Amino acid sequence: MDKVRITVGSGGKKTQYFINNEIISRFSNEKLNILADGAHIDNNMVITTDSFTVYPPFFDGGDIGMLSVCGMINDLASMGAEPKFMTMSLIIEEGFPFIDLKNILDSMKKITDKHNIQLVAGDTKVVEKGKLDGIIINVTGIGYRYRDIFLPAKEYKVGDKVILTGPVGEHSVAVLKSRGIVEFDGEIISDVAPLWDPVRKLIDANVRVKFIRDVTRGGLSAVLNEFAFFSKTKIEIYEDEIPINEKVLSICDIYGFDIYSLACEGRLVIVVDSEDVENTLYLLSQNDLTRDSKIIGRIIELSKPLVIMNTQYGGKIIMDMPSGEILPRIC
Amino acid sequence: MDKVRITVGSGGKKTQYFINNEIISRFSNEKLNILADGAHIDNNMVITTDSFTVYPPFFDGGDIGMLSVCGMINDLASMGAEPKFMTMSLIIEEGFPFIDLKNILDSMKKITDKHNIQLVAGDTKVVEKGKLDGIIINVTGIGYRYRDIFLPAKEYKVGDKVILTGPVGEHSVAVLKSRGIVEFDGEIISDVAPLWDPVRKLIDANVRVKFIRDVTRGGLSAVLNEFAFFSKTKIEIYEDEIPINEKVLSICDIYGFDIYSLACEGRLVIVVDSEDVENTLYLLSQNDLTRDSKIIGRIIELSKPLVIMNTQYGGKIIMDMPSGEILPRIC
Repeated sequence: MDKVRITVGSGGKKTQYFINNEIISRFSNEKLNILADGAHIDNNMVITTDSFTVYPPFFDGGDIGMLSVCGMINDLASMGAEPKFMTMSLIIEEGFPFIDLKNILDSMKKITDKHNIQLVAGDTKVVEKGKLDGIIINVTGIGYRYRDIFLPAKEYKVGDKVILTGPVGEHSVAVLKSRGIVEFDGEIISDVAPLWDPVRKLIDANVRVKFIRDVTRGGLSAVLNEFAFFSKTKIEIYEDEIPINEKVLSICDIYGFDIYSLACEGRLVIVVDSEDVENTLYLLSQNDLTRDSKIIGRIIELSKPLVIMNTQYGGKIIMDMPSGEILPRIC
Repeated sequence: MDKVRITVGSGGKKTQYFINNEIISRFSNEKLNILADGAHIDNNMVITTDSFTVYPPFFDGGDIGMLSVCGMINDLASMGAEPKFMTMSLIIEEGFPFIDLKNILDSMKKITDKHNIQLVAGDTKVVEKGKLDGIIINVTGIGYRYRDIFLPAKEYKVGDKVILTGPVGEHSVAVLKSRGIVEFDGEIISDVAPLWDPVRKLIDANVRVKFIRDVTRGGLSAVLNEFAFFSKTKIEIYEDEIPINEKVLSICDIYGFDIYSLACEGRLVIVVDSEDVENTLYLLSQNDLTRDSKIIGRIIELSKPLVIMNTQYGGKIIMDMPSGEILPRIC
């Protein structure tokens, strides 16, 4: 591999390979090697970083500003941390419409205000026209562990339930439509949303949450494989139970996309102790952002990491980490 | 202003205007409004963020990887904070040579190792060929206040001395040469360097350091104006005392650059109590990276912010914040 390919940033197998061979191998330390959505930098504080390159910067249901703040909040929520501070680095192409930039900043402010997140440091770079395509935003978030929860947890049991908080793929399809790559009648709205509130509700209710991850690049397949890998468990997924937006599914069928590899920006995979699953579903159903939550699987063995899917057609298949070319700049 | 112009990212007047009118006005809070090189997020912890877009990514004396880690260290050092953790977000153009990426990462590792900085979280995005020019790296750094120093300080006195730790402009000229914008015989090496060690030595020696800032975009003029603005003082600069690399100066003369607006990546402006200035110069002279330090000015009035320069030719001029088009992608 002499040149960097798109797949290095896809969130799938090639990304994993790159991270293991070029990042972990060089910068190895116990905080980094956990490979979570962020890192505990001391007893109470969690940090996460992401650069957002979504194109176009505005799409049905959101924009790059909203996406960047939601992505940060969801990464912290996945660590059980309450968002508190953020930094923002803007990288802008010369000639980018100022009104778009203002709208993007307004959109960020709306969500930071709602969550009492303080922007504390930033940076602005402008790159010559033609040397960048629009705008890139990096957001680094700092959160505090909430009620001493430490996620991802270390202990897993056979029977722990895997929950998905809503249908997958809407964000990807909304962006691809705005980019002119897919066409269809009607509207699909990106699922982009900040998910700290529903997570906090679970922690407040003493639900034994063991693992949370937001479904982003690499889609549901990637998150489930990351969970199996992290927890060293075999999990079984019931395809029939996966919440699906029928319109998204039919677009996937027409264009040949794998719906389980499509990025979301407002869905979580949550693993809870089986005794707490009813309460979890009840609490999630109370929030508009997670009201379509369903149990989609469970841990079946504490053994070699593996994701097995019971397909709609009755057979079992291995649900692998996505490995092909996935469309770039969805997030 | 309907489109974002290069000057918004130049570090000069237009950047200040943008930050005040679009960032501070929206996201105002006491931590952000200090407008330092980073923010104190709690009693002990300091955070800073920067995206590096330098082009080309390799230049005489350094590369974008080294630059990104040094920039982060120097921003923390400017707050009196010891660097401890960092996040790294890579944004790479499809087709970027893998060997270059490895060299950039090696270069980052060399400096993080030397300073015991742990990389704790990261992100990798790959953008389609032609939609980005090479590579952009965002680094967010977390440091801890060192020996209870809080910088920038709040109290200033007439007579406080302004020190510059070495000649200015070498980094800019080295990058512009690598980009083919300037040509000359011989070599000018970028000044890029991590400056926590000399800063720590000053703090260890109980020097009353009041203000430190690394000279980056906007050059010496910008930093001196930022200092005057922050401290609400009038300062006098002696042009004759400013350390100059004669070769850089002659290139500036030929190409019409203002040497005092050129970015460095390894020079600090340090303001100290006049009683400590000899000890400060002695300590700085002991480190190769700061051995050419000189007193270049002093606070002459506690009044309206202003930078007065006593020119080489005897007259006094106002040294203003740079406002013109400054070449982009120097850092």
